[in-house]
Amino acid sequence: MRAVDIIIRKRDGLALTREAIDTFVDGVTHGTWPDYQASALLMAVCLKGMEPEETLWLTEAMVRSGERVDLSDLGAFTVGKHSTGGVGDKVSIVLAPVVAACGGVVPKMSGRGLGHTGGTLDKLESIPGFRVGLSIPEFKAVLRDVGACMIGQTATLAPADKKLYALRDVTGTVESLPLIAASIMSKKLAEGCRALVLDVKCGSGAFMKDVAHARALAEAMVSIGTRAGVRTEAVITDMEAPLGEAVGNAVEILECLDVLHGRGPADVRLVTRRLASRMLVLAGLQPDDETAAAAADQAIASGAALERFRRMVERQGGDPRVCDDPRLLPLAPGTVQVTAERAGFVTAMRALAIGQASCLLGAGRDAVGDPVDHGVGILVRAKPGAQVAAGDTLLELRHRDGRGLEAALALCREAIAIGDEAPAHRAKILEEVR
Amino acid sequence: MRAVDIIIRKRDGLALTREAIDTFVDGVTHGTWPDYQASALLMAVCLKGMEPEETLWLTEAMVRSGERVDLSDLGAFTVGKHSTGGVGDKVSIVLAPVVAACGGVVPKMSGRGLGHTGGTLDKLESIPGFRVGLSIPEFKAVLRDVGACMIGQTATLAPADKKLYALRDVTGTVESLPLIAASIMSKKLAEGCRALVLDVKCGSGAFMKDVAHARALAEAMVSIGTRAGVRTEAVITDMEAPLGEAVGNAVEILECLDVLHGRGPADVRLVTRRLASRMLVLAGLQPDDETAAAAADQAIASGAALERFRRMVERQGGDPRVCDDPRLLPLAPGTVQVTAERAGFVTAMRALAIGQASCLLGAGRDAVGDPVDHGVGILVRAKPGAQVAAGDTLLELRHRDGRGLEAALALCREAIAIGDEAPAHRAKILEEVR
Repeated sequence: MRAVDIIIRKRDGLALTREAIDTFVDGVTHGTWPDYQASALLMAVCLKGMEPEETLWLTEAMVRSGERVDLSDLGAFTVGKHSTGGVGDKVSIVLAPVVAACGGVVPKMSGRGLGHTGGTLDKLESIPGFRVGLSIPEFKAVLRDVGACMIGQTATLAPADKKLYALRDVTGTVESLPLIAASIMSKKLAEGCRALVLDVKCGSGAFMKDVAHARALAEAMVSIGTRAGVRTEAVITDMEAPLGEAVGNAVEILECLDVLHGRGPADVRLVTRRLASRMLVLAGLQPDDETAAAAADQAIASGAALERFRRMVERQGGDPRVCDDPRLLPLAPGTVQVTAERAGFVTAMRALAIGQASCLLGAGRDAVGDPVDHGVGILVRAKPGAQVAAGDTLLELRHRDGRGLEAALALCREAIAIGDEAPAHRAKILEEVR
Repeated sequence: MRAVDIIIRKRDGLALTREAIDTFVDGVTHGTWPDYQASALLMAVCLKGMEPEETLWLTEAMVRSGERVDLSDLGAFTVGKHSTGGVGDKVSIVLAPVVAACGGVVPKMSGRGLGHTGGTLDKLESIPGFRVGLSIPEFKAVLRDVGACMIGQTATLAPADKKLYALRDVTGTVESLPLIAASIMSKKLAEGCRALVLDVKCGSGAFMKDVAHARALAEAMVSIGTRAGVRTEAVITDMEAPLGEAVGNAVEILECLDVLHGRGPADVRLVTRRLASRMLVLAGLQPDDETAAAAADQAIASGAALERFRRMVERQGGDPRVCDDPRLLPLAPGTVQVTAERAGFVTAMRALAIGQASCLLGAGRDAVGDPVDHGVGILVRAKPGAQVAAGDTLLELRHRDGRGLEAALALCREAIAIGDEAPAHRAKILEEVR
């Protein structure tokens, strides 16, 4: 099968055979398909789509392009979680120890932040000494002992996806539902869990701007996971405003510790509790949502989840004393407030702009490989719905020597709207796809 | 303007600005746009199309990517001709001397044959000594003296088109009306004529399989030429069956000489006469079709056209004695007949298969740079519509030592259909676009 014939078939809107898709992924992996043919096919897929079957085959071929982590010796309760990325989304960091404390095994491989959304790895690395570059045997040892471990994606997992993603990024072919679904699911399936809960973020601060698109992506991913033999569900959650009250790295770890201590913002607690419940049910550890939610609550109330987190940090080389003494986290010294120019209700706090502002302060990166400043970030002092007086603090920016401050402040001011009436309540959990 | 933003714009079905198109063509010409970005944009153009304005800009940018031949010192009557390619299409070789004999100046740059359609250059090179690799000053000198000269496209004309075409060929992006129109017209506009007549072939043996597609291509090209300031028209002609009675190289030159001597197949004479008339009218040499056709007829009847051809051959290094002694042409010695298996009427002679058969005998090439055998080819002894008895010769294959003969014979037998009733008359000239 010649590459050009496969391209032409997709260009003409026809479904590709499993063999054709294997040829493509194999060619990309081994460099026998030149980039210009791969990008032509990617654009054709972008514009002509893929059948669910083709998307599954693409995912499976990408999984086969590399190593698949064998977690079978870790028992029946391995359960993964993936978020499509949002601003202030630190849920994984709380969720993993909560689920572990309830008997689950949560092997979490994450990416670094790029653009306006932060990365779990960058957040964790704000804990002094924390190592995300564990080998697979080290990873499994921590999982066996603690039930939770959070590391970076290794280069051996779905290498075809890495090559294709780099190409998509520069050829305008990122925004394709089957390609997004296959990319995410290839990595998740390669991680070897038996069950998987997806958090599909939806709103102006997320990749999926509306519920229809978020639902379509969720359905595509759930279909792939299920057909590939992994119990998979998706929860669609709101990402109009940042999640929680902290956006950055160390500031988000602080917030995670708050939640693990039984405090913290209501929305973070709500989303964590929901995802934990579904993970426990899907893993087969709890019979239903009610008992699962109670178990998750109890894990926090009893301190068991915090204890798991402490052990995970310790086993990954981090300083476990941060759990009790957050002053050990490297917060940047500078603070500047954004205050309300008038009295009223906060009607909007656009996540995209807040995320970009945090990035400008140094908490994120524009290009792969850029360093991040773990100490800077943004604290939300008045969430959407809050009533404020003129001069009240809305946001607090933590900066280092004023770096990026002016532009970040301008973005933050634009991100916030104050109106005369309280905005309608926005549900944080929008839909679930099973 | 980043390449990826230009690609995304077209992917989303939006028109590109002139600046964006210039950036693209410039990037391709100078290698600053990597092939993988160019091919992604080409696929997006394939699937989302281009407005007439964009197609014009693309054409003009490709013209500017290289040299534009300056024919201004050759007077007002320069008139070009281009055929989209068919089987047995030797019209240019007759047409150029006819129009030259009527006062026109016909600077013809042609390509080589590839696949099932032959190439004018390969046909001309079957004349012993004929040189198609003239420099532009040599080309202009012959044009000045003879009024017709036929050479290969120089590498300096529209180099962006050459790069894009090579990329399209391997990325499934050949079949795009705006890309085809811009590719053809960039070369034609770079050739510097004041007027241009296009022969858009239509039918199973041509690139455009039906009249609707042929008309759309003709309209796009006429629009580009006209807007670029060149008087341009198109004639859509039939390509279900081969044109004339010879398919190959030397055999086609023989047929051209027949026509220049006032003999030859009716369809070749008809198409030549029509195209010559339009070229003479468009060049401003004749007031209307009637006088123009009479002038073309007279050019042949008087021997003036043959004389022009003789001088062109001589000036291009060829042996002019072939004009009177066709035995100087290098015909291959082997002949095999394809005969009618039953009595009836020839109802079909599929051009594609005949062209492929001729290619198999060695008259064409599968890959750029392959040598061709000038002496082999196929002679049509019974055209569609002819009544035949069982055993009558339908085709005569000229082969060299049996090379490709078996496969060619099989293709030829499949190409011909014999029925009980005479087929409906097919017009050779289907439409005209002005």
